[in-house]
Amino acid sequence: MTSASKTRLHIGAIVFPEIDQMDLTGPFEVFSALPDTTFHLLWKEISPIRDMKGLILTPTSTFGQAPRLDLLLVPGGWGQEALMDDEAVLGFIRAQAADARYTMSVCTGSLICGAAGLLRGVKATTHWSAHHLLKYFGAIPVDARVVVDGKHVSAAGVTSGIDGALRAAALLTDERTAQLIQLFMEYAPEPPFEGGTPQTAPAELVEAARVFTRHIGDARLATAQRIAIRLGINPN
Amino acid sequence: MTSASKTRLHIGAIVFPEIDQMDLTGPFEVFSALPDTTFHLLWKEISPIRDMKGLILTPTSTFGQAPRLDLLLVPGGWGQEALMDDEAVLGFIRAQAADARYTMSVCTGSLICGAAGLLRGVKATTHWSAHHLLKYFGAIPVDARVVVDGKHVSAAGVTSGIDGALRAAALLTDERTAQLIQLFMEYAPEPPFEGGTPQTAPAELVEAARVFTRHIGDARLATAQRIAIRLGINPN
Repeated sequence: MTSASKTRLHIGAIVFPEIDQMDLTGPFEVFSALPDTTFHLLWKEISPIRDMKGLILTPTSTFGQAPRLDLLLVPGGWGQEALMDDEAVLGFIRAQAADARYTMSVCTGSLICGAAGLLRGVKATTHWSAHHLLKYFGAIPVDARVVVDGKHVSAAGVTSGIDGALRAAALLTDERTAQLIQLFMEYAPEPPFEGGTPQTAPAELVEAARVFTRHIGDARLATAQRIAIRLGINPN
Repeated sequence: MTSASKTRLHIGAIVFPEIDQMDLTGPFEVFSALPDTTFHLLWKEISPIRDMKGLILTPTSTFGQAPRLDLLLVPGGWGQEALMDDEAVLGFIRAQAADARYTMSVCTGSLICGAAGLLRGVKATTHWSAHHLLKYFGAIPVDARVVVDGKHVSAAGVTSGIDGALRAAALLTDERTAQLIQLFMEYAPEPPFEGGTPQTAPAELVEAARVFTRHIGDARLATAQRIAIRLGINPN
């Protein structure tokens, strides 16, 4: 880890096999527009990686080459499960988090941060399908799209990374800078349908979505329970 | 161009140097979640490309290898200018558009579609900073975030590609399928600030944004005027 320049912001995201690309690319759009900022895509080695739907992403630095980061972003996706016991990843997150001004998780990236021990006693959110797992990591679950608690910013599912990154951008710089980025991105969304959350979607649609995620949901629960024991957390 | 399978949907996006990655990755998140669908990233050759902020994207097929597409997506970004007279690109767009069920432009991708002659007499939108240029391509400018006119779907700036893609996904399949994707993406946005459009942002912020885009704005205007002459369009 080399020391960061005094004026330049260094923001880094972990990129991994079976990541959900939008957990990364939404925040990238925001953070890469900050003045005097370098955005690092970080993984164990610098070779192309496929997201869970096949988009090819290429890391820019290995963990060992990464500078000290002002903000560490941890995205989610189906590949999150494989990282939950990966000490190379969890150790990197812990080391960066110790010095970073902010850590930020998007979607099931919260579970990875939880496994690294970052969420103990911290208010946090995650994708609706994984929200019940936050307690296994000692987090205080909050039913919100974006939660800022101390130095950790968590965003709920996938697209919420945009909202979370704009909030974090304002924290890193100032509100005017974040507003200017929002204007460039023409972020005045008009979702075509009601029902972007389980609370607002028709019940049968939520049930269909749950059936679709049951397999990974079962695995995630078993993993969360095992990690709670490792962390010495009683989820009551 | 090989012929597409009867049941499988083929969706393809043009990816090019200095693309704005989110014009592509927002719609990718939606379209890649459609059942029985292959998403192609298309360019002249299959080698990594940098987006306008440095994100490395890798095409999956050359133009020549692309199947006949059900939907062709044309993103924008600073690199749009270099494509406006590029007959390899414009010819590919025209050839695919002739057979596709839909064409879709995001942000200044509308200008590229315009240069290919796709927007003659077509209602369309684009990024707010380029909206005044639509008339040079014979388009009927509409002040809306998403415009569907016949087989062309246009989305305004950057993040509007998500809204546009959800609309297009419903057209390609059905509303329920698009709603399910919206729920998975937890797309119930909460922009942290007012002012995602020039109409809602403070005047001084809009002016600051315009100063920042003036250089490319001047080049885009000169190009649009030149192309209007080539297309035989009188923008009055």
